[in-house]
Amino acid sequence: MSILKIDMSNKEVIVEDFPRDNLVGGRAMIDYLLTKHGIPTAHPLSPEAPFIAAPGLLAGTSAPQSGRMSFGGKSPLTGGIKEANAGGTAGDKLGRLEIRAIMIVGKSTKWQVLKINAEGATLESAGDIVGMENYAACAKLRQRYGEKISIIIIGPAGEMKLANSTIAVTDLDDRPARHAGRGGVGAMMGAKGLKAIVVDSADTSLRKGVDADAFKKAVRAAVETIQNNPVRKVFNSLGTNVCIDVDGDRGSLPTRNHRHGAFENRKGLCSNTMIELNNARGGTMGTACMPGCIVKCSPIFYDSDGNHVTSALEYETVAMLGANLGIDNLDSVARMDRRCDELGLDTIEVGCAIGVLNDVGLFEFGDAAKAEAYIEEIAQGSPMGRIIGSGVTQTANIFGIDRIPAVKGQGIPAHAGRSLKGWGVTYATSPQGADHTAGVVEDDPLNPVGQVTRSRTEQISMAALDATGLCMFTFLHSTPEVLASMVAALYDVEWSAADFEELGREMLRQERAFNIKAGIGSEADRLPDWMRTDPLPPTNAVFDVPQEEIDQLFNF
Amino acid sequence: MSILKIDMSNKEVIVEDFPRDNLVGGRAMIDYLLTKHGIPTAHPLSPEAPFIAAPGLLAGTSAPQSGRMSFGGKSPLTGGIKEANAGGTAGDKLGRLEIRAIMIVGKSTKWQVLKINAEGATLESAGDIVGMENYAACAKLRQRYGEKISIIIIGPAGEMKLANSTIAVTDLDDRPARHAGRGGVGAMMGAKGLKAIVVDSADTSLRKGVDADAFKKAVRAAVETIQNNPVRKVFNSLGTNVCIDVDGDRGSLPTRNHRHGAFENRKGLCSNTMIELNNARGGTMGTACMPGCIVKCSPIFYDSDGNHVTSALEYETVAMLGANLGIDNLDSVARMDRRCDELGLDTIEVGCAIGVLNDVGLFEFGDAAKAEAYIEEIAQGSPMGRIIGSGVTQTANIFGIDRIPAVKGQGIPAHAGRSLKGWGVTYATSPQGADHTAGVVEDDPLNPVGQVTRSRTEQISMAALDATGLCMFTFLHSTPEVLASMVAALYDVEWSAADFEELGREMLRQERAFNIKAGIGSEADRLPDWMRTDPLPPTNAVFDVPQEEIDQLFNF
Repeated sequence: MSILKIDMSNKEVIVEDFPRDNLVGGRAMIDYLLTKHGIPTAHPLSPEAPFIAAPGLLAGTSAPQSGRMSFGGKSPLTGGIKEANAGGTAGDKLGRLEIRAIMIVGKSTKWQVLKINAEGATLESAGDIVGMENYAACAKLRQRYGEKISIIIIGPAGEMKLANSTIAVTDLDDRPARHAGRGGVGAMMGAKGLKAIVVDSADTSLRKGVDADAFKKAVRAAVETIQNNPVRKVFNSLGTNVCIDVDGDRGSLPTRNHRHGAFENRKGLCSNTMIELNNARGGTMGTACMPGCIVKCSPIFYDSDGNHVTSALEYETVAMLGANLGIDNLDSVARMDRRCDELGLDTIEVGCAIGVLNDVGLFEFGDAAKAEAYIEEIAQGSPMGRIIGSGVTQTANIFGIDRIPAVKGQGIPAHAGRSLKGWGVTYATSPQGADHTAGVVEDDPLNPVGQVTRSRTEQISMAALDATGLCMFTFLHSTPEVLASMVAALYDVEWSAADFEELGREMLRQERAFNIKAGIGSEADRLPDWMRTDPLPPTNAVFDVPQEEIDQLFNF
Repeated sequence: MSILKIDMSNKEVIVEDFPRDNLVGGRAMIDYLLTKHGIPTAHPLSPEAPFIAAPGLLAGTSAPQSGRMSFGGKSPLTGGIKEANAGGTAGDKLGRLEIRAIMIVGKSTKWQVLKINAEGATLESAGDIVGMENYAACAKLRQRYGEKISIIIIGPAGEMKLANSTIAVTDLDDRPARHAGRGGVGAMMGAKGLKAIVVDSADTSLRKGVDADAFKKAVRAAVETIQNNPVRKVFNSLGTNVCIDVDGDRGSLPTRNHRHGAFENRKGLCSNTMIELNNARGGTMGTACMPGCIVKCSPIFYDSDGNHVTSALEYETVAMLGANLGIDNLDSVARMDRRCDELGLDTIEVGCAIGVLNDVGLFEFGDAAKAEAYIEEIAQGSPMGRIIGSGVTQTANIFGIDRIPAVKGQGIPAHAGRSLKGWGVTYATSPQGADHTAGVVEDDPLNPVGQVTRSRTEQISMAALDATGLCMFTFLHSTPEVLASMVAALYDVEWSAADFEELGREMLRQERAFNIKAGIGSEADRLPDWMRTDPLPPTNAVFDVPQEEIDQLFNF
């Protein structure tokens, strides 16, 4: 297997052998390569700072929904290590091509496209897609490189090197609707002068595994496990947006700049409304973003004229651009989601950033037109747009706002940490900054006791899951023996549930070590002070997990 | 003696006894109070974060030029501890009033003025000075509170809570031309809802000292030492702006965004030009800013119509708004200085921030009109103005610029660290961020050897000097026994040169400890990487003091 090492300064592409049995992939590959080649004190956008893209260990196989792509480097948003991953079709193709990672340093003065196929990898001029928004750019790239390619691309936000900029991956409908959202991975790619990566897996086939029979058997067990998970059906029929009701009911739906935990107008945003609108307009619930998907969680949303608006209208987006801005209009939220997909912006960070502007009178809750207008400012690259596009912490800094819903500079997502104290611990401690996928803790949410232990366990297994390329909604990190059997058979190694957990621990150790060298130590492992003093209605909970206990999370 | 403890939330003013023999003042008082009452993890602009103003140990006495005022707290610019001091007349008055410090917490919803006189301290509505620029606001305050007051005030930048905002102190001409410039102390004061402090020392007299005769004798010795220092005459006749030639000659004059160390058009900026213009227009060199000044270093600059433009047109300003922006027109620089004084902006930080905009095509070197226009944007509080007014690091972050002339978020001043490697070590390591007063190291400037030791020595004695209220240009930190005799006699304690040095060490220990708790550790004690790789013409030096050696600086 191979990794591509690319220096954008001289356009050199080196294909290096990568030992098959070095079981790092996805987020683990980013941790591994940054530990080896990263410069923790370098500026995130400097030529020296590596940008890395890596499919997971199971990519390109028949393992169910195993094609998530990880992107990472040093984050311009947090100043620390960053991995963000996305679904879509590219991971599967890179797996088939037996490519384990792409590591890019240097900086090209002219925008480039990296073309990867069975013959190798080459850099070509990006040409007229420079400055284009994502849907149009992808259409152009398909004209140029063929209909069957997968595309990894940055939008104008990434070109502008905004600290809140994403990398989009095209889905099964060829739409750039799958985004590695958090931490400004788009700016990392943009800083290299790389506009897109196109991947063509023609003349390849699925990886069958070194022990093909055992692998097939392990995959069957995994598929069965996923199919038997009752949550699968919920996500399939209602989408992740079911959480508008779930979190609204338990008081953990960020509303009006994280000042409330329930939104009185949530009906306008909830899944039932989405389903009704979709039924009337031709939209669909329950679509897949990558080959081999069993869960199929994603809604495709249409407007009242029956035209496609956006794909993958997820809970985090609806909560942060809806409830957190006091907006109850799903059409408006869907339009904003599309604009964020076009520009390459993380919707969580945008929702947090516009939300804090209420503190200085620059945004009235519920003013959907103003929120949409702010996103257009980002499109224009105006100073105001650049501020908002630089994330919530920088927005707050520029406007002298001292109540910032962020950890390590990254905006707090849509499961309120005061009413969900286990998530709160994850937000506080994840080396990635406040991240809703870094360690989901649902148990006993209002009780501070035991949350550090729970968060530790979840962060370890979630990290390891992020190494495999498996979608979180396989929930296979809960049955690591099922998951480990696939890896063991694919690579023909001894690899157990214990190895899976140890991989997760090692990843967190590496991420934390990078952060410490970058100047981000345990002092940064905390929620903002106001979350410990300001109660969140309706639970009126404050975050009260003792900091001393939180500071023990990484003692493992 | 007393300290005033004020809670702006309930307007409570408590006068607390402060032990006369606790020998902390100025910067040491800030370190002491922040160590005791500060919350290193709190947001710098939060109500919980204390803002402190303190005159030095020798304030209100006949000790020569001993009236510098220190201001500090947690910096919105660096995120660490911050002390910035300024000359002017307020320190002397607070000393006469036997006030050792003012510590302010909380936040007033309406802007206040703190009135201090022999009868006590009261908070009053700021009334119509809110939003006013500094000169007009000071005129109003003199109408309101009498002609003999000293004024400590924030301009619109501090009201806007910009991370680059200063606190002005009125000088002997009642002009708000003396600024505690660095690190956003104006925003700290603004975050409390405090627009100004007016100090009236009527019915007080000079502090004579517990051992009055010994003190008188010690002061005489100090005066003599200052008078015999040859540098005094240079600064008196040429101003600090003499460094335009000194630094230009040795290649350490930051020019065009820190890309050159000499400016071919420096003649337009140098002291001789300033003197010629002043002679022709009625301006003056060599004025004093505070009572008891012997050095008298400050120019007062007039325009071609014979009208006052600005007072205290110093080297750092001329270099950073002149050479660093490729501007060779002293009139333009003087106008910008005045605008920065009016708005309450640090000229070093503004010069750095506008300079980096050249990297993204938003500023052409030499375009004085554009530079002036950018400062007006800050006055207007436009998004672009707020970006620039938030300092160089945030400006760079918002525009995706990865070559940032800053340490710990604070812009690098006008003695280039590559051609002056001892200053470079000071910039890298000072707990205050890149600071030209934190430790001046002139010896053997291009040789990396020995600079860490020199910088350590200078940082220690400079810190201690900042505790006394003495102006740096007394150079009494070089003869600590002379200085210590004054303190010993004033407070009637045993206090030697060794105690002076130990005070400096303890201050640096406290500052560093605060920073570490705030999440700023030794990883932040470094110059930007590009200063180690990009040679600075004309010396073509890179910064090559080994980082391992730098990391030992605080081992004392």
